[in-house]
Formats: sequence, C-alpha cells, structure tokens
Amino acid sequence: MESILHQPIGVIHTPFTGAENAPRQAVNSLAAGVVEVRPELMEGLDGIEAFPYIILIFGFHLAPAPEKLKVISGRDSVERGLFATRSPRRPNPLGLSTVRLLRREGCRLFVEGVEMLDGTPLLDIKPYYSDLDCAEKWS
Amino acid sequence: MESILHQPIGVIHTPFTGAENAPRQAVNSLAAGVVEVRPELMEGLDGIEAFPYIILIFGFHLAPAPEKLKVISGRDSVERGLFATRSPRRPNPLGLSTVRLLRREGCRLFVEGVEMLDGTPLLDIKPYYSDLDCAEKWS
Repeated sequence: MESILHQPIGVIHTPFTGAENAPRQAVNSLAAGVVEVRPELMEGLDGIEAFPYIILIFGFHLAPAPEKLKVISGRDSVERGLFATRSPRRPNPLGLSTVRLLRREGCRLFVEGVEMLDGTPLLDIKPYYSDLDCAEKWS
Repeated sequence: MESILHQPIGVIHTPFTGAENAPRQAVNSLAAGVVEVRPELMEGLDGIEAFPYIILIFGFHLAPAPEKLKVISGRDSVERGLFATRSPRRPNPLGLSTVRLLRREGCRLFVEGVEMLDGTPLLDIKPYYSDLDCAEKWS
C-alpha cells in the first residue's frame, strides 16, 4: 500500500471534537467546515471554485479497527456486512463525503455539510459531477 | 499512512487491459465488471444485495505520479488544478466510481458501469445512498 497512498494532502477542520457530537453523515449536517490543503499543493485547487459540490476522501483516523465483519447500520438498525454500511470501522478506514463548496481562499476551501471529526486527515478532493456521481441520473 | 491504509480488500476485474481502451469515466461505460473481495472478508458483503448501486474506492495502481499540479481536464479540455479534475495522476491515486450492482455470488459482485483497468486493487466498497451521495437531492 505504500506505493498507492502517500500522506494526507491536508486536514479538515470541523466543529466536531468527538464522535458523540458529530452528525452521523453529511446529509444530516449543515455544519460549516474548512478544508485546508497543504500550501505546496495549492495550485492543484485552481478552478475548483467553479464546482458547487466537491467530494472529500479522508481517513477515519480515530476509528478502531473493525472487530467483526457485520455491524448494526446506523441508518435503520439492521445488521449488515460492513461494506453494506457507512460505518467508520472498516479494513481500510476511508471516509467519503460530498459537501457544498462555498468559497476558496488560497489553500482553504470553505464548505458546508461536514460530519467528520475536527483534524481529520484529507486524502483527496474530487469535483462532483452529477452525471458520474448521482446514480439517479442514469435511469 | 501505514496506520490508515492497510491492503486491498480485493480486486476489480474489467474488460480494460490498458488505458488506451478504457472509457474515461463510468458515465461513459455500460461495461460489465466483477468486484472480487478477499474470501476472508466475504461476510462483510452481507446485505449489499439490497443496494442497486455501490461506490468503489480503488487505487490507480498504474498511474504515474503527477508531474505538475495543473492538468488538462478530459471532460472539457480546460486546464485546472488536479483536485478540480478526475485525473488518475494524483498525490494519493485514489479512484472513485459509482456502479450498478447486478448481483452477488459469494465474494463476487457483478456490476455494470466500470471504467477502471483490469486488476485494479479495490480499497473499499460503500453502499450508495441518494440522500448522501447525490447532491442534487439537497436543493
């Protein structure tokens, strides 16, 4: 894995200091956050201002390793395999959230709809395209 | 990063053996693929059959490291920062695709809409939720 993943590209600042006060997923959140990219990567953000939504891939850095492969889903309290849930306790603890992009200031992106913990390591940012990312558009 | 990313949870089989014959992104693809999860993780798929779409996070394992932070977007030929594109050449070469789930057979998921190369390392699978993942639902 060393060859695929290198180091965080930045950090995500949010109001949530512990799992107990964080919303379960971004749909429940209008919370404002700041996505701060490492200054040496700033040019990589050029043009992102044009996108109303962006996708953040981040690390669930505080989630314990999964103890078992089936978990109770937070959405409907049904037990499912963890790959059929958005649980943070996963073999590769990767988080995924689509957020609204409000504005950019240099290497900082001001966003709305965060649910991750303050200090979360940011691994990647992608522009949101409805034709790629909204499956309902396909049918 | 060692503490966050461990090893692939499986591999993605597709018809695409080289970048030259792969579609640019899943929206252009009705190609069938097979997502094969490591047998010891099979129970983690339980219940996934109920989801018409799933999200794959994978490694762009053959993409060269980015040489610069601005690239020509394949969608509109405009030069942008790489975080404002879906280019595979990224500081952390993570790929993201939403695909249609056709059926499951044990540790294999038969999907439609793949665009990644055959043999792509699979890092995570998440269920697609329109209220989380389709931003148009929010407005």
